[in-house]
Amino acid sequence: MALHELHLIEYIAKQAASTCDSSVIMGIGDDCAVLQLNQDKELLVTTDTLIEAIHFDLAYFDSFSLGRKAAAVNLSDIAAMGGTPRWAFLNLAVRPGLSKDFLSTFLTGLFAELRPLGVQLVGGDTVSSLKELSITLTLLGEANRHCHLTRREARPGDLIYCSGTLGDAACGLYWLQAQKMQKKRLNMPQNLHFAAKKAIKRHLTPIPRLALGKALAEDRLANACIDSSDGLATDLAHICSQSGVMAQLDAKAIPISRASRLLCRALRLSPLKTALTGGEDFELIWTTPPQNEGQMRRTAAAILGHTPYKIGRILQGKGVWIAGKDISYHGFEHIF
Amino acid sequence: MALHELHLIEYIAKQAASTCDSSVIMGIGDDCAVLQLNQDKELLVTTDTLIEAIHFDLAYFDSFSLGRKAAAVNLSDIAAMGGTPRWAFLNLAVRPGLSKDFLSTFLTGLFAELRPLGVQLVGGDTVSSLKELSITLTLLGEANRHCHLTRREARPGDLIYCSGTLGDAACGLYWLQAQKMQKKRLNMPQNLHFAAKKAIKRHLTPIPRLALGKALAEDRLANACIDSSDGLATDLAHICSQSGVMAQLDAKAIPISRASRLLCRALRLSPLKTALTGGEDFELIWTTPPQNEGQMRRTAAAILGHTPYKIGRILQGKGVWIAGKDISYHGFEHIF
Repeated sequence: MALHELHLIEYIAKQAASTCDSSVIMGIGDDCAVLQLNQDKELLVTTDTLIEAIHFDLAYFDSFSLGRKAAAVNLSDIAAMGGTPRWAFLNLAVRPGLSKDFLSTFLTGLFAELRPLGVQLVGGDTVSSLKELSITLTLLGEANRHCHLTRREARPGDLIYCSGTLGDAACGLYWLQAQKMQKKRLNMPQNLHFAAKKAIKRHLTPIPRLALGKALAEDRLANACIDSSDGLATDLAHICSQSGVMAQLDAKAIPISRASRLLCRALRLSPLKTALTGGEDFELIWTTPPQNEGQMRRTAAAILGHTPYKIGRILQGKGVWIAGKDISYHGFEHIF
Repeated sequence: MALHELHLIEYIAKQAASTCDSSVIMGIGDDCAVLQLNQDKELLVTTDTLIEAIHFDLAYFDSFSLGRKAAAVNLSDIAAMGGTPRWAFLNLAVRPGLSKDFLSTFLTGLFAELRPLGVQLVGGDTVSSLKELSITLTLLGEANRHCHLTRREARPGDLIYCSGTLGDAACGLYWLQAQKMQKKRLNMPQNLHFAAKKAIKRHLTPIPRLALGKALAEDRLANACIDSSDGLATDLAHICSQSGVMAQLDAKAIPISRASRLLCRALRLSPLKTALTGGEDFELIWTTPPQNEGQMRRTAAAILGHTPYKIGRILQGKGVWIAGKDISYHGFEHIF
């Protein structure tokens, strides 16, 4: 253990201590964290690794947003299962050249996301790397027994819904990349400027749909659920293959924001294709049996502040179909 | 998600499925793993990241041993808390140039360590990296309620014990590094050859002391415990600082193997200094009140096959002292 690692651990431990309640029998500073789970609960565990130059580019990712995003992508997995996040573990591999300030702002961003949800940082590992910053966050959450959403329960007849517009985060990413290649902020009219700002925000600081996931699970309003991390074509393909069903999407119903349309035109991209294949929107995609549709729509609208989007239907068969074409697994790759 | 990632996940999922029992409500293949914990149990969580060229060098680490070691270093943390390991999560960041064969042998090594213990691989994340292989394993385990060992309960008067010889893994590492620098196997007499083989094995495939840790915890035979991952001087310093006590080590009692003495002589190193500061032996270091010493020695000897080593005593004060010198936190850095 290098000495600066020890300091970093101490710093993290100090920041984390203020988030801990009595469920944490032992937090940072021992060989393991020791946690007390209520009975009648199931434990949910998710873990995501973000690698520099693969999942984020420090040319345009500020460390505060990076901290928020590391938390958000994991929180989104808990949301997709309908659970409540409880404890977090942070593994950081820090390469030379990253300042103390960078790391502390990263942590501030992480806590900005975790603290309002009552998620406690209780462990992890801090190591040196030579060339790449790598961030692994592991989240433990809980769900009531037999009350979590999976990818494998979609049934023919189910309606496919999603919680927000798709493709925005990808547009934000493409815009940032275009800016970087030109080594300057792109000159653009005011409306494009606002659109870019919105889309970039979707890429940098996605919002995990925790309240919605929980409501869908606890009120039994969804059969299957996933979060849109790898793009609709891929994420929905997971539901279809694991449930043994087919998804029929309605091209006209795919929700695309005005911002996304504007940016796609400027970038010469198809807005629909971007919505189908662009990743990291972290919206929920779920299937609901028709008899639950009314209640589900009311519940979701109350949480989201807008009606959720009906984008298609589950049928017997396999694949993810739109306009006569199977687009399963088309899409997003986390490689720049 | 790149397509080869998808294949790797499927491969891992297939390998992992055979290890899963009814505690795993949902394993690999959804947003989170869903686990069923018994009541009256505490949950232990530990996670370790190993980075290429920092924690391991593929010049001499074969992928099978690397898989075993990734498991062992985490299992050792569960051992140090006196727990039983249950579920594992593997995060792999795979750089270009690593073959399918390398990865599958790595997994075989990982399972060779996990499967005999009944530990089930139930989740993780598989991503691409550009430059470094990075491995994060997260282990969940359990302990009976109020029955885990910590670093913070050492008391003045306690005797300090360890489960095996110290410095061997460091000798193995130094030997491997010396061989690599000379770009060949070192010529050496037969006894040195055997010594090097033994020490290298200690570095490549350490043995987590799970049965011992569990016995110390459940029979309440230890006050504090840690595993020797960063070297005695550092690991014992953690116990001392967290317990608010001082450790007085007996230089003559530090257990050093014959192999380690031979190699240290050849490498012109001090065997004692290597034992005090060399990391990654993954022996347990614990403190026992004098009244429990007899029973502890019998229990430990029955498990280890040899009597554990008494290496010092806990006193009032602070620091880790040997021969009039405070050696707290001296030692091992995971940087080549």
